[in-house]
Amino acid sequence: MEKVSSSGWSSALAGGADTIVARTTPAGRGGLAVVRLSGAATRAIVSEICPEVDLDQGWRASLVRIRGRDREEIDRAVALPYPAPRSYTGEDMLELMVHGSPFIVTSVIDALLAAGARQAEPGEFTRRAVANGKMDLVQAEAVNELASAETAWQARQAQAQLSGLLSQEFATLRAALLELLAQLEGALDFGHHEIPYDREGATAGRDECLEHVRRLLATAAAGNRIRDGLRVVILGPPNSGKSTLFNRLARHDRAIVSPHAGTTRDVVESQLEVAGVRVVLLDTAGLGSTADPVEREGVRRAHGAAADADVVLLLWPVDGEGEATEVPVSGVPVLRVRSKWDLAEGRGCEKGWLALSCRSGEGVEKLRAALVDLVSQGVEDLGGRVAISNRHFRSLTLAAAELERAEMELPEVAAEAVRGALQAARELLGEVVTEDVLDRIFSDFCIGK
Amino acid sequence: MEKVSSSGWSSALAGGADTIVARTTPAGRGGLAVVRLSGAATRAIVSEICPEVDLDQGWRASLVRIRGRDREEIDRAVALPYPAPRSYTGEDMLELMVHGSPFIVTSVIDALLAAGARQAEPGEFTRRAVANGKMDLVQAEAVNELASAETAWQARQAQAQLSGLLSQEFATLRAALLELLAQLEGALDFGHHEIPYDREGATAGRDECLEHVRRLLATAAAGNRIRDGLRVVILGPPNSGKSTLFNRLARHDRAIVSPHAGTTRDVVESQLEVAGVRVVLLDTAGLGSTADPVEREGVRRAHGAAADADVVLLLWPVDGEGEATEVPVSGVPVLRVRSKWDLAEGRGCEKGWLALSCRSGEGVEKLRAALVDLVSQGVEDLGGRVAISNRHFRSLTLAAAELERAEMELPEVAAEAVRGALQAARELLGEVVTEDVLDRIFSDFCIGK
Repeated sequence: MEKVSSSGWSSALAGGADTIVARTTPAGRGGLAVVRLSGAATRAIVSEICPEVDLDQGWRASLVRIRGRDREEIDRAVALPYPAPRSYTGEDMLELMVHGSPFIVTSVIDALLAAGARQAEPGEFTRRAVANGKMDLVQAEAVNELASAETAWQARQAQAQLSGLLSQEFATLRAALLELLAQLEGALDFGHHEIPYDREGATAGRDECLEHVRRLLATAAAGNRIRDGLRVVILGPPNSGKSTLFNRLARHDRAIVSPHAGTTRDVVESQLEVAGVRVVLLDTAGLGSTADPVEREGVRRAHGAAADADVVLLLWPVDGEGEATEVPVSGVPVLRVRSKWDLAEGRGCEKGWLALSCRSGEGVEKLRAALVDLVSQGVEDLGGRVAISNRHFRSLTLAAAELERAEMELPEVAAEAVRGALQAARELLGEVVTEDVLDRIFSDFCIGK
Repeated sequence: MEKVSSSGWSSALAGGADTIVARTTPAGRGGLAVVRLSGAATRAIVSEICPEVDLDQGWRASLVRIRGRDREEIDRAVALPYPAPRSYTGEDMLELMVHGSPFIVTSVIDALLAAGARQAEPGEFTRRAVANGKMDLVQAEAVNELASAETAWQARQAQAQLSGLLSQEFATLRAALLELLAQLEGALDFGHHEIPYDREGATAGRDECLEHVRRLLATAAAGNRIRDGLRVVILGPPNSGKSTLFNRLARHDRAIVSPHAGTTRDVVESQLEVAGVRVVLLDTAGLGSTADPVEREGVRRAHGAAADADVVLLLWPVDGEGEATEVPVSGVPVLRVRSKWDLAEGRGCEKGWLALSCRSGEGVEKLRAALVDLVSQGVEDLGGRVAISNRHFRSLTLAAAELERAEMELPEVAAEAVRGALQAARELLGEVVTEDVLDRIFSDFCIGK
C-alpha cells in the first residue's frame, strides 16, 4: 500500500524520530574521513561520545576527543556542529572530521550507533533535507547528479538544477495549471449563474501550458547526451584507418576513467570528454559486402551502432575502391572524412569532405574542431536551461497527454484533464509523491549523502 | 649531497614558500570530499577563488561559492579557515568540504593551482607540521600509522605514539645521553686541573642509558606483530582437519578486507583480527613422508611457514596413525589439538592436548580462547608502552652498539661513543635528519596528509 498525501509536503518524506549516522566521504585509506550525524538525538549522543562539542556554537569547529562506550579514546577529530534549522538536513547535525583509517571510521560509527544512532540509508540525509523544506525533490535529484558528475556539462547542469533553476520552471508550470484549473472550476460553479465560460481564454491558457511542457520535454535529448554521453560512431570500409583515428582521438582527449556499464563486443568503445561533454567513441568493423559469416555479423553490428549514433564519422580512404559514398544512416549529423590523405598525391578533396592523414597529422585538428562543434550543438540547444531527467520526462509526457486530450468545449472534462496535468507537475516537485517513488529516487544515492 | 643541520630543526624540514593543495579524503564518488590548502599564499588564493572566506575568522565554517579563473561557479562548499599558527601545519590553512564528484574535486584543485598553489607531495602537510614544531618526527610517523590502522591495536599504538608517549621516551634517553656527555667532556676539559674523572658515575650513567635503549629495542618484536600481524600456522598430518579448522576460524572472526602483499602459493592465508590484533592464519600441506615430489615441496613449505610462525596450531587427528607427536619447530608457542574428536568414542584426551571437533563444535570455543590468550601475550608484554618501528630499531641498535663499545676508562674515547649514541637519539626525534631520511619517511604517506 502506498501512502499519498495530497497537500503540502508528502508524509512519505517525513524524517522520523531516528538519528542517523554515516561516513559521507568515499571508502578507503586517506588523510581524513567525514562522519555525519543528524536527528533529534544528536545532542544526547554528542554529550555521551564527545561532550566537548557545544552544539549551540553552530558552524564553529573545535578539536575534540571521541570516546567509545568503555570511555577509551577512539580518535581526536575536528567537530563541526550545525544546530537545527541551519543545517543540511534542517535537523541538529554534527560532522566529525576523523583520521581516515578504515578502523577508526568504523570505531567512531560503532560508538555513535551504540549511543543510539542508526546507520543512514542511501540518500537519507538529503531525503530529510527535502522533508524539512531545505530543498525540493528536483534539487535533491541534482545532489546525486552532482556527486556522480564526471564532465563539465554534467557538473554545470547539476549545479544549475541544485540552485533551483529547473524547480522554478516546474513551479511556473504548476502555477499556470492551477490558474487554468481555477478558471475552469469557476465556470463549473457559476455555470447556472450566467457567468459565461471564457472558452477562448481557457484554450489559450491550456495551449500556453502545453507549449511550456513541450519546451521542457525538448530538453530531454540533450539531457540524455549529457548524462549518458554523446555517441560518436566511426564508420567506413575495411582498411580505411578507422582504428588509427579511434586511437588518436582516444589518446588525445581527456579519457574518462570510470568504466561505463555494458559490453563492447566487437564494437570497441572509449569514453572521452570533448568540449565538456562525455563522448562515447565507437570503432566498428569495416562496412562492405562479405561472405564470411563472422565478418557479416561485424557489419551488422556496425550498422546497429550507427543507428544509435548522435554523430557519425564516415571514413573513406583515398586509396580505396569506388567513389566515396553516403553513409547508410539518416537523421544523424555525419562528418565525412577522406582518410589516408598522405596517399592523395596532390589530388583535391571533394566538397563536403575533410582531408585527413593520421600519418602526417594533416586535418586532425580540423576534424577535432568539427567534432567539438557537433558535440557543442548537441547540448547547447539547451540555451542555458537545465535538461530534464527520465523521471521528469515521464511526468511531463503524462502532463502533455492530459492537456492534449482536454476537450476545451466542456469545462468539466477539461478540468479533469488539467487536474491530471497538475498532479504530474506536483509529483515532479515532490509535493505529492509516493514512498515508492521516493525509495526509487534515493536508493540511487550513495550512503552518507 | 645531503644537507644536515646539527642544531634545532633540520633545514631539510623547512616548509618553503610554496602554498600546497591536495584532496585529503580518499578518491572516488562520495557525498563530500575535503580539499586542503596550506602556505603563505593561502590568503591571496582565497581572495581570488572564494573571497567570501574570512581567514581571520579561524575555525568558523561558512557556506561559500568557489569560482574558477573564468569566474564560473565551480561549487558551493563549506569552507573552514585555520589562520597560522593554529592549524595542522602551523601555516595559514583552508579546508573546503566540496561536493564529492571526481569532476568537482579536480576542478576545485585546478582553480587553486591556477591561482598559485601547487600539488602537495605525499605527507607534505605533516612534514610542514614537523618543520613548524607542531609535532616531532616520531609523532609524524604515527599520523601515517593511524591512517593505515586496520585493527584496534594498530590504532591504539598509533594514537599513543601521536600523543607523544614514544617521543618522551626518546627525549628522556637523549637528555640522559647529553648529561653523560657533559660529564665526560668536563673530565676532558678539566683533566689538567686535578678535577677527578668519576669513572664509576660515568659507567653507571652509560649502563642506565644502555638499559633504556635495550628496553626500547625489546618492544620491536611486539611492534612487528602489531603492524604486520601475528603469524598463526596450522600444522598436522594429511587429513587431520586443518582446512576445516582454518575455514572455521577465518569465517568466525572479523576478516581484514584489505589484501596483504605477498603470494600464498600452496600455503593458504587469511587475515583476521583476534583480540584486536591482526592475525595472519596459514593453512599448510599435510606433514609426513611422501614420495611424490609435488607433495614433498608442499611439506617443505609447511616447515618453512612453521619456522616463521609466532604461534603453531598442531593438529593430530584422533583416527590418525601413530601417536600424537611433537611439532618440528622450537621457540614458538604451540597449541596442541586432538582433532576429529567426534570419532574418539569416549576416549580421554592426552594431557597438554585440546580435544576438538569442528563437526560437533566441541572444543572450538576453548581453542579460540587459547588463541586469544597467546595472541594477547604476544603484544601485551608491551605493558602500556608504544612499540618502536623499524626506523627506530635501526637507530637504537646503532646507539646500543656505540654505548657497548664505549671504553669508560678513557673519557676521550667514551665521549666519542656517547656522541654517536646521542646523534642516533636526535635523528630519532628528527632534530638532526637528512633530506634522504625525510623523503623516505614521507613518501610512504598518502597525498593530502
